[in-house]
Amino acid sequence: MQFGLRLVTQAVLCKTQRVLLSARSLGTSSPRFLKHQPENWFSKRGKRQTSAGNTMAEVDPKIDAILQPLRDAVKQQGDIVRKLKEEKAPEIDIKRAVADLKTKKKALEDKELELEPKDAQFDRVKMEDLLKQRFFYDQAFAIYGGVNGLYDFGPMGCAMKANLLNAWRKHFILEEQMLEVDCSMLTPEPVLIASGHVERFSDYMVKDMKNGQCFRADHLIEAHLEKLLTDKKLADDVKEKAAKILSVIDGLTKEEMGSIMKTYNMKSPVSGNDLSEPVAFNLMFSTSIGPTGTVKGYLRPETAQGIFVNFKRLLEFNQGKLPFAAAQIGNSFRNEISPRSGLIRVREFTMAEIEHFLDPEDKSHPRFKDVADLRIPLHSACNQLDGKPVQVMTLGEAVEQKIINNQTLGYFMGRIYLFMTKCGVDPTRFRFRQHMSNEMAHYACDCWDAECKTSYGWIECVGCADRSCYDLKQHQKATGVTLSASKQLPEPKTVEFVEPQMQKGVIGKAFKKDGKAVIDFIAAMDKEEVEAMDRALNDRKEFAVTVNGQEFKITPEMVSIKRYEKTVHVEDITPGVIEPSFGIGRIMYAIFEHSYRQREGDEQRRYFSLPPVIAPYKCSVLPLSGKAELDTIVSQLSKALTNLDISHKVDDSGGSIGRRYARTDAIAIPFGITVDFDSLKEPHTATLRERDTMKQIRASVDELPQIVSDLANGRRSWEDVLSKYPLFEQQESSK
Amino acid sequence: MQFGLRLVTQAVLCKTQRVLLSARSLGTSSPRFLKHQPENWFSKRGKRQTSAGNTMAEVDPKIDAILQPLRDAVKQQGDIVRKLKEEKAPEIDIKRAVADLKTKKKALEDKELELEPKDAQFDRVKMEDLLKQRFFYDQAFAIYGGVNGLYDFGPMGCAMKANLLNAWRKHFILEEQMLEVDCSMLTPEPVLIASGHVERFSDYMVKDMKNGQCFRADHLIEAHLEKLLTDKKLADDVKEKAAKILSVIDGLTKEEMGSIMKTYNMKSPVSGNDLSEPVAFNLMFSTSIGPTGTVKGYLRPETAQGIFVNFKRLLEFNQGKLPFAAAQIGNSFRNEISPRSGLIRVREFTMAEIEHFLDPEDKSHPRFKDVADLRIPLHSACNQLDGKPVQVMTLGEAVEQKIINNQTLGYFMGRIYLFMTKCGVDPTRFRFRQHMSNEMAHYACDCWDAECKTSYGWIECVGCADRSCYDLKQHQKATGVTLSASKQLPEPKTVEFVEPQMQKGVIGKAFKKDGKAVIDFIAAMDKEEVEAMDRALNDRKEFAVTVNGQEFKITPEMVSIKRYEKTVHVEDITPGVIEPSFGIGRIMYAIFEHSYRQREGDEQRRYFSLPPVIAPYKCSVLPLSGKAELDTIVSQLSKALTNLDISHKVDDSGGSIGRRYARTDAIAIPFGITVDFDSLKEPHTATLRERDTMKQIRASVDELPQIVSDLANGRRSWEDVLSKYPLFEQQESSK
Repeated sequence: MQFGLRLVTQAVLCKTQRVLLSARSLGTSSPRFLKHQPENWFSKRGKRQTSAGNTMAEVDPKIDAILQPLRDAVKQQGDIVRKLKEEKAPEIDIKRAVADLKTKKKALEDKELELEPKDAQFDRVKMEDLLKQRFFYDQAFAIYGGVNGLYDFGPMGCAMKANLLNAWRKHFILEEQMLEVDCSMLTPEPVLIASGHVERFSDYMVKDMKNGQCFRADHLIEAHLEKLLTDKKLADDVKEKAAKILSVIDGLTKEEMGSIMKTYNMKSPVSGNDLSEPVAFNLMFSTSIGPTGTVKGYLRPETAQGIFVNFKRLLEFNQGKLPFAAAQIGNSFRNEISPRSGLIRVREFTMAEIEHFLDPEDKSHPRFKDVADLRIPLHSACNQLDGKPVQVMTLGEAVEQKIINNQTLGYFMGRIYLFMTKCGVDPTRFRFRQHMSNEMAHYACDCWDAECKTSYGWIECVGCADRSCYDLKQHQKATGVTLSASKQLPEPKTVEFVEPQMQKGVIGKAFKKDGKAVIDFIAAMDKEEVEAMDRALNDRKEFAVTVNGQEFKITPEMVSIKRYEKTVHVEDITPGVIEPSFGIGRIMYAIFEHSYRQREGDEQRRYFSLPPVIAPYKCSVLPLSGKAELDTIVSQLSKALTNLDISHKVDDSGGSIGRRYARTDAIAIPFGITVDFDSLKEPHTATLRERDTMKQIRASVDELPQIVSDLANGRRSWEDVLSKYPLFEQQESSK
Repeated sequence: MQFGLRLVTQAVLCKTQRVLLSARSLGTSSPRFLKHQPENWFSKRGKRQTSAGNTMAEVDPKIDAILQPLRDAVKQQGDIVRKLKEEKAPEIDIKRAVADLKTKKKALEDKELELEPKDAQFDRVKMEDLLKQRFFYDQAFAIYGGVNGLYDFGPMGCAMKANLLNAWRKHFILEEQMLEVDCSMLTPEPVLIASGHVERFSDYMVKDMKNGQCFRADHLIEAHLEKLLTDKKLADDVKEKAAKILSVIDGLTKEEMGSIMKTYNMKSPVSGNDLSEPVAFNLMFSTSIGPTGTVKGYLRPETAQGIFVNFKRLLEFNQGKLPFAAAQIGNSFRNEISPRSGLIRVREFTMAEIEHFLDPEDKSHPRFKDVADLRIPLHSACNQLDGKPVQVMTLGEAVEQKIINNQTLGYFMGRIYLFMTKCGVDPTRFRFRQHMSNEMAHYACDCWDAECKTSYGWIECVGCADRSCYDLKQHQKATGVTLSASKQLPEPKTVEFVEPQMQKGVIGKAFKKDGKAVIDFIAAMDKEEVEAMDRALNDRKEFAVTVNGQEFKITPEMVSIKRYEKTVHVEDITPGVIEPSFGIGRIMYAIFEHSYRQREGDEQRRYFSLPPVIAPYKCSVLPLSGKAELDTIVSQLSKALTNLDISHKVDDSGGSIGRRYARTDAIAIPFGITVDFDSLKEPHTATLRERDTMKQIRASVDELPQIVSDLANGRRSWEDVLSKYPLFEQQESSK
C-alpha cells in the first residue's frame, strides 16, 4: 500500500473563531449536520432568533444609549469565555460561561427587537387570508381535514414558484455553467447510513402516556417556561433560572431535557396527562423498496446526497478538472414532530442546492471582483460575541479582513444577495449571520446563513457553508469507490512513501484465525498510523493494534517499514466544498411578507408588490366593457403577448375597472393594459398601468406588447416609459 | 332532502363500441384505473404491443398480400364476438371468443412487425452507451450497487428534461391559460382509499418459497411460455395453447395464473425453487406521517388526485365557471415488482397531467378548428377489431365520423401531436391507438393512447381519456364536501322534487336503537331510490331497507313522499373530464431513440439530433486554438449569448476541432460557433455550423448571437441562414 500526499487545509479565522475552534471537541464521525441540530440550513432559530433589527437604518442615539449597557454585558461575558478557553479551563466552567453568554445575548436581542420601529400596517392574519383567497397556497388535503406540514400551491403560487426556480436556474446554473442533476428522491438506507442521517438526523420527542400524542421536547419546554415567565409574581431567582434554560434550549441533551421536565413537573399541554422521557425520533420518512420488504429506503432529507453519490460521473463529465459546481432543484422530506409556522417548517419542501467542488488549497475565484464592491449587512461571529450590531461592509473588505474566509465563499454570498434582492427580498430586512463555532460541524471552515426578517423573527432562507468534503469520504469508505480528484502539481515533486512489509506467515502463526483480520487492518493504515507503528517498533520493539475489540501485539519480526521516494506529477485530493443551500418555500414566504402592501386609506385593497421576474402573470388585458367591438383588440394584444412569451391574464369579467385593477393587484400582476372606447379610434391605442405607482400611460396597441416585454424582463424601467409616453389619468375612477 | 336535476351523458360511439360497451359489466365502484391494469396510462403493453408498423409509409402490395389472410381472420373473429354480444350469449362463450380474437390480433401484429423494413443502423446497446457516457441519465446509487427502477439524470438529461417541461408548460399551460398546481406527494390514506388505489392498485406476484425472491406473475408466465415456444419439436396443440395464454396475459385473474403455473410446473427462473401462489401486491410506497405512527400515508401514484382534491378551490379561482383545465407537473411513485426496460418502467417518474373539466353535455371546443386539418395516424378500436391497419386522417374527419368522441378530446389529441413532434418525436413512428372497450373503465366514453414506436415495440407515452368524473364523486362521498359545479340553464326550468317525509317517532318506536340509523339512511337516498320506495309503499305497502347488515321493513305509516315543483335557473352538475396524462421519462426515451444518429461511414461518430427547443445547450463556442488572442472574442460571444438567454457551452479543451465537433454533436448541441484566426481580422467574423447538415457559414461576430437565438427559438430556419450567408468549407477537417 502506498501513501500519496495528504493535504490539510489551514483555515484562516478571526481571533475569536480560532479560540473557539481550538476548544471544540473533535468527534471522529460527525456528519455534515450537527447532532441535535438536524436541519443544517433550516436551523431551529425560527422563533427565538429575533435580534438586530433594521440593518440598513440609521442608528438612533437614544436607542443606542439603552442598548449600550447590554452590549457591554455581552462583550464582558464573551471575554470571560475567551479567557477560559485560552486557559484550557475545565469544560464544566466553560459550559457555564457559555450559558451565561447566551442569556446575555438573548437579553440584548430581545431589547433590540423591542426598540425597533414597528410596522404598524403589517397584519399576518390578513396577509395569509389574501394568500389563501387567491390560492397562492393552502393546506393540502383540506377537504379531508388537512395534514399538518403539507401544503399545495395553487395557480398563483405555482406560477410564482416556477418563475422563482427559473430565475434561480438562470442566475446560478446557466450564468455559472453549473452541472445540474435530477436525482432519485427514494434513497436506499446504506447511502444515508454513510451520510450519518440514519444515526443522527433526529429530534427529541415526548409522548402523552395515555393518548400517545407526541410533542417536540424543546418546543414543549420552551412553551412551558415562556408561560411561566408571564407570571409577574414569579420570584427573581426562578425567573432567572427559567430564562437561562430558554437561552440554551437548542443545545440541551436528552438527559438535561428529561431532568428539566421533571423539575418543572411538565404535563401534556393538551390533556394534562403524564409525559414519557424524551426519546430521539428520526426525521426521515421510511419506506420499503421492491416487493420483498427487505430493501429499506427513505425519502431523501436533502438533495445534496444525490450530488455526492454522482461525484465520480460529474468529475468525469467535467473532464476530471476542479473546480466545478453541481446543482440540484427538487423536493426533500422531513417528518417534523410538530410542524408549525406555515411554509417555514413543513414536511415536504423544495430545495435548490449547489455543491461547488474546489481545491482546498486554492479558494480564490476569478469572478470575485464582480461582487467585491457589493455592500452587504454581515453579522459576524466576532461581532455576535462582542455584542455588536450588524455591520454593513463590502464583500471585498470582508474577505480581505478575513471576516469571510475566502473569495469563493464571498463570491457565492454576493450572488445569493443579488438573487434574493432581484426576486423581491427587501434588502433592509436581509442579513448574513455567521455561525458561531458551536453551530458548525467540526470540519467546517466558515458558514453564513442568509436570513430574512419576517413576523416570525429572522428566518434562515439560505445556508452558505465552506467545508471539507466529509460526505465524499464517507461514501468512499462505504463503497470502496475512490471519490477524489487529481490535481496537477505546478512542478513535479519528490514524495516519500512509507509502506508496511508484512511477514504474513509469522503473523498467521502468532494470531491463528485472527491473522487475516490483523493483516487487513495493517494494510488499511494511513501514512500517519504507519509512522507511529514504525516509531513504536523501533523504540519499544512492539506495537499494539485493536482489531474487532481484541488487542494484538505486533513485533519487528512481523512488520518492517519500507521507505522510498518517487517523483509525482499529480496528487490525489479530496475536494473541499462550498455549499449554498436554498429553502424555496421559506424564500417565497419572506418575499410574500416583504412585498405585502395595502393602499393608503383603503384597507380592503391589499396586494403583493412582486417584482415582474417572479410575478405569476406579467400583464393583464382588460376590456373596459363587455362590448364585442373591443374583443378584436383584446385578442390581438393577447396573441402578441403570447408570441413574446409574456404570461398574461385576460379579465373580461365585466366588473368595474377599479375592481378589476384591485383583483389583478391582489395576484401581483405588475402591468395592466386596458382597452377602452378610445382604443377603437385609429391609430388604435390602449392604456398601460403599473401596479405599484398606479400611474398610466397611453401608447399604440402595436407598441404595447413590446413595452411590457421590456419592462417584464428588466430591459426598461417604468420611469423611462413614464417619461416617453403621455400620462393618462382618467380610467381608474371611471365605471 | 331535495333532488336537483341529474344529467346522464349519452356518449356517441361507433357501432362496435356501442355493442362492446353495452356488454360490459357495470360495477358500482370501479376506480379510474382498471383492476389488474393499474397503470392507466403506463399500460402493460410495453413489450407485447408490437403491431402496425411504419404508419405513414406507403403500403407494399407484396406485404399486403401476406397480411390480408391474417386481417381477414381477425375480422371474422371480430364479427363472431360482435354477434355473441348482440345475442347476449353466455359470458363464458364471449370470453372464449375474445381470447381467440386476441390470439388472431397478435398473429397479425407479429407478422406486421416481422415484415417491416428493419432499421439496420439502430443498436440499442450502443445508444445506451452513449447516453451513459455523456451522462444523460444513469442508474441511481450505482456506487452502492444501484437500485432497480431508479435513475438519475445528469447535466445533459436534466437540461433536456427542464427544456421539455418548459416547452410543455408553454404549449399547454400558458397557451391555454390552464391553472397549474403543485401538490403534496405525501398523501394520507383516506384520499387513496376514496380513489380506489388502496384496494386495487396492485399487480400479482409470486415468491420463491426458499429465498423469498419475488417475481411479477404475468412476467414469469410470459417468459416461461416464450422460452417454451422456441422449442421447435413442440407439438402443435401445446404450441397453440401456449400462444393463446400469451395473447391474453394482460387479462388473467389470480386463479387463472395460479392454475397455469401449476399446469406448466413453473419454478423460479433464478433458483429453480418452488413458487408461492400469486398474491396481489399493492404498488404504492407506504410510509407513516408524523411521529405517532398512526397516520398512514403513501407516495402518490399519480399527480391527478392533487387536482381532484383541490377542485373546489380551482373552480372558485375560475369564478365558478366551466370549462377550465388544471395541470400539474411532478413526480409519482410506483413500487414495481420487477422494473425493466430502462426509463420505460421505473419506480419514480415525472408526470405532467391535465384535467380539463367540462359540462358533459357540451364537449365542443372553440379552438378545435385550429387542429381540425391535422392529418394524424389513428388506430381506432373498430379498425383493431376489423384487423385493419392504422389509418391516417384529419382530426376534423375523425370527429365528424365519431371515430373520436368529441371536439375537446380531438382538440387535445391535436395539441398532443403538435407537442410531441415539436419536441423530436418522429411522426412516422407515432400513432394514437384507441382503447378497446375491455381496456376502459366503465364510465369512460373514449380513450386514446399516444404511442411511439421504439425498439421495445409501441410504447404508450401519453394517455388521453374522456371520462366522467368518478374521482370527484368519490371524494365528495368520502368527505361530504360538495364537488360539483353550477350550470346556468339557457332558460328557467320547472323541476319536480321528491322528498321523503319521515314520522320519526313511529320509526324510533319500531326500530328502537336502530331508529336513527334508518332515518339517516332514508335521508341520504337519491331521487331514484325515493321513487322506488314510493312505488313499493304504494304497491306492497312496505319497503325493505338494509342498514348495517340488518333488514328493516318501512311501512306507509313511517314515510310519506312529498312532491313539489320548483323553477330553477341553475343546475348542479358533476363535470366530465378530458384527461391527457404525459409520462415524461417515456417521452424522453422515445425522443432519444428517434433522434439517435450515426455519421455515414463513421460508426464512432454517434449523436442525438435533438431539436433546439429541447437540446441541453443551444450552442457551443469553440476557439480553434488555445491562443490567448482568441479569448476576447470567445468571451464577447459568450456574454452576448447569455444576454439572449441562449444556453451554451464554451469548449476550449484544445482537442482537434473535428473531435470537439463530435463531442458537441454527441450531447446534441445543434449550433456551433468557431472562432478561428480569420476571426482576428476586422470586421471580426466567426463560423456557424449546424449539427445535422454539418454545413457552415461565416458571419460577423456581432450578428451571430442573434442568428443563433432566432434559429434556437424557431424564428428562422437553417435553410434561410444558409441562403443569406457565405458557405464556409474549411475547418471541419483542419487541425
